[in-house]
Amino acid sequence: MRLEECLQAVRKKAPLIHCITNYVTVNDCVNLLLAAGASPIMADEEEEVEEITSICDGLLINIGTLNRRTIPAMIKAGKKAARLAHPIVLDPVGAGASRLRTQTARQLLEEIPFTVIRGNLSELKALAGSAGVTHGVDAAQEDRITEENVLDIARFALQVSEQTGAVTAITGPIDIVAKAGKNPEKSGVILIRNGTPLMSRVTGTGCQLSALLAAFAAACPERPLEAAAAAVASMGLCGETAEQRMQEGDGNASYRTYIIDAICNLDEKQLKAGLRAEKAAGLPEGARI
Amino acid sequence: MRLEECLQAVRKKAPLIHCITNYVTVNDCVNLLLAAGASPIMADEEEEVEEITSICDGLLINIGTLNRRTIPAMIKAGKKAARLAHPIVLDPVGAGASRLRTQTARQLLEEIPFTVIRGNLSELKALAGSAGVTHGVDAAQEDRITEENVLDIARFALQVSEQTGAVTAITGPIDIVAKAGKNPEKSGVILIRNGTPLMSRVTGTGCQLSALLAAFAAACPERPLEAAAAAVASMGLCGETAEQRMQEGDGNASYRTYIIDAICNLDEKQLKAGLRAEKAAGLPEGARI
Amino acid sequence: MRLEECLQAVRKKAPLIHCITNYVTVNDCVNLLLAAGASPIMADEEEEVEEITSICDGLLINIGTLNRRTIPAMIKAGKKAARLAHPIVLDPVGAGASRLRTQTARQLLEEIPFTVIRGNLSELKALAGSAGVTHGVDAAQEDRITEENVLDIARFALQVSEQTGAVTAITGPIDIVAKAGKNPEKSGVILIRNGTPLMSRVTGTGCQLSALLAAFAAACPERPLEAAAAAVASMGLCGETAEQRMQEGDGNASYRTYIIDAICNLDEKQLKAGLRAEKAAGLPEGARI
Repeated sequence: MRLEECLQAVRKKAPLIHCITNYVTVNDCVNLLLAAGASPIMADEEEEVEEITSICDGLLINIGTLNRRTIPAMIKAGKKAARLAHPIVLDPVGAGASRLRTQTARQLLEEIPFTVIRGNLSELKALAGSAGVTHGVDAAQEDRITEENVLDIARFALQVSEQTGAVTAITGPIDIVAKAGKNPEKSGVILIRNGTPLMSRVTGTGCQLSALLAAFAAACPERPLEAAAAAVASMGLCGETAEQRMQEGDGNASYRTYIIDAICNLDEKQLKAGLRAEKAAGLPEGARI
Repeated sequence: MRLEECLQAVRKKAPLIHCITNYVTVNDCVNLLLAAGASPIMADEEEEVEEITSICDGLLINIGTLNRRTIPAMIKAGKKAARLAHPIVLDPVGAGASRLRTQTARQLLEEIPFTVIRGNLSELKALAGSAGVTHGVDAAQEDRITEENVLDIARFALQVSEQTGAVTAITGPIDIVAKAGKNPEKSGVILIRNGTPLMSRVTGTGCQLSALLAAFAAACPERPLEAAAAAVASMGLCGETAEQRMQEGDGNASYRTYIIDAICNLDEKQLKAGLRAEKAAGLPEGARI
Repeated sequence: MRLEECLQAVRKKAPLIHCITNYVTVNDCVNLLLAAGASPIMADEEEEVEEITSICDGLLINIGTLNRRTIPAMIKAGKKAARLAHPIVLDPVGAGASRLRTQTARQLLEEIPFTVIRGNLSELKALAGSAGVTHGVDAAQEDRITEENVLDIARFALQVSEQTGAVTAITGPIDIVAKAGKNPEKSGVILIRNGTPLMSRVTGTGCQLSALLAAFAAACPERPLEAAAAAVASMGLCGETAEQRMQEGDGNASYRTYIIDAICNLDEKQLKAGLRAEKAAGLPEGARI
């Protein structure tokens, strides 16, 4: 499946995404989902999340403003979504920054079969700490993805994918999307070089990408690797498009608006022309590692 | 009272609105209230809502991100506002999508004498389910308001109004504002054809309208039907104004900004010239049904 | 320390600010922090706030949507931040509007040694009610700061500063930043005449300023008075810059975007040229009062 076809599938299927996410960036996540052609429902009360997720096509769990009240709701929604075979995305915001976040993220991983996990390298390392990953990227290494360390980190992403069963998306200056498995058609590592540093000046571009991942995964349930790569490339490309629109006087607040606008206007042709994604060379694609 | 006079009243009286609403769209609701000339206060802790609502002119209850903690706060605030004869607006977001929402919305309706209830047709049907409405729009019917079914839905809106005592605003491609009663001056059905489909690409335009309804109702407490119709028409007209402002590169995020800007700049003359509201023909206006 | 040097310090040190704030304006507060060159972390769960604040450089506590769940988190975070000598800012949103807010604000003041307290005059009066301030501005006086009453209010601000140890920032048509103390280099009153009435048409400009105060105080821990004055002047000046950018069709929503954009683009030269700050004459600067 080509990545631009994944975008087409989102536009066509208009998946309904159940979002359990943080109160900081939720409005942007939701407007981004609408921009992409998906629809959102927000519900985080334990008592109703099973019903809500049942009428949806995919689930997003983001622990950005984690609190004790919503953890059981996340678990319940995740288990229900799993029983319904809905794609489920985890954004372990701040894993590693507090025990509560690290442990909750790990608990979620144990109890819910995620389709995609997206975070920065520090967050993914914090998750992997208990997962028995003893080889690969260690905590002492710089958490910035560079051309020099990208293949090492890609191997780490594959390890996390193998252990969790999820597509692992590690985002940074270079984005890594990895899926372990024996089927070479559905596994491997895709490196994406879209995006711009300006995106880090807007809060929630990571959260927004996680929401987008849920929409893409829900629209292409058979092809989670390509769906994830397409979402990552779309977000990065729209960050570039938005940057080109910046004029005198504009700052990060205008840029925030332009990013969502760009997703709204993105079409398959533009994505095909602008995406900079490639299969990682030198890695045993799809092979058990 | 002419609808443009209701807008004038909001600008003049600058009503203070107590908002118990969801965390997804609250910022937009508040900026829209400020745009309209009203002022907002947000407070959802049970312990303080009675005091807060006492210093306000109107109350908005929106169940968009319902949780167990805030339900008692909604009830307390609503009862206090009722004792003070403040106009109260209910937005039953997602009623019908979960038992918790449906039951909470119904409980709110039983305990609080709402001035206005605003929702889409599905939400209003879910509310009416227990209210003994046995005639009119049934669940099997398409929930999209069209020129063909609008009078049937208007009759349903009047029924809900009669049973709840509230002005019922059902929004969709055509908006219906209905108030049952014997006084032909203060009851009847108003159909409004302002608005544009693009509004559904921005999260919270419904929530924003509910906030606006609270401001209009608080500014015109003697004329809830016209106040509600004026708010609905203002929001729809500003959706149109905002759409005309869209330029190359703009998407739903810019559009979101333009809608609130348009409310900020709306004046009576513009509203009078742009509103497309009419009394529904063929309905027993104001008559007991 | 000159005020523009404080801005430079924020850009250079990029302080990490732990924000416990309200869900209404949090997104704008965070984007403003990013615009200023600082970084934000939001965490309000009691169980994790000590860990989170430990990795930060400053703490913001804003009671805008106060609830019982987060009060213990505020106390814990504040005490931990104090032990680590982190600058801490209090925004007592709505103090005086409910007993819960007034009492919570006072409790926070008793248990946490704040570096800066920022509010409008009504909020600061409500705080001072129990603090034994018997002289100065009384509740019957108009709560609007004017050229006529500004020195009286400045004396009140100094009293609050003396009793709390914090820099007191009372914002309004004229902004007052006061620090009591014996060291004339580090105490006194600064009056700031930047800003524009349009800022009150956007929700959260006060909350945003409080977030900015935390960033400035964290970047200049030795000079809290100048840091606070620099933050207040920067916000006001950017309100002016944003107003100059307003075009036909723009309203408060565009203005909201322009304010954050302006902070993003603000440089030392622009701040130096635009700031209208002066030491208050006729006050015993730095003297014990």
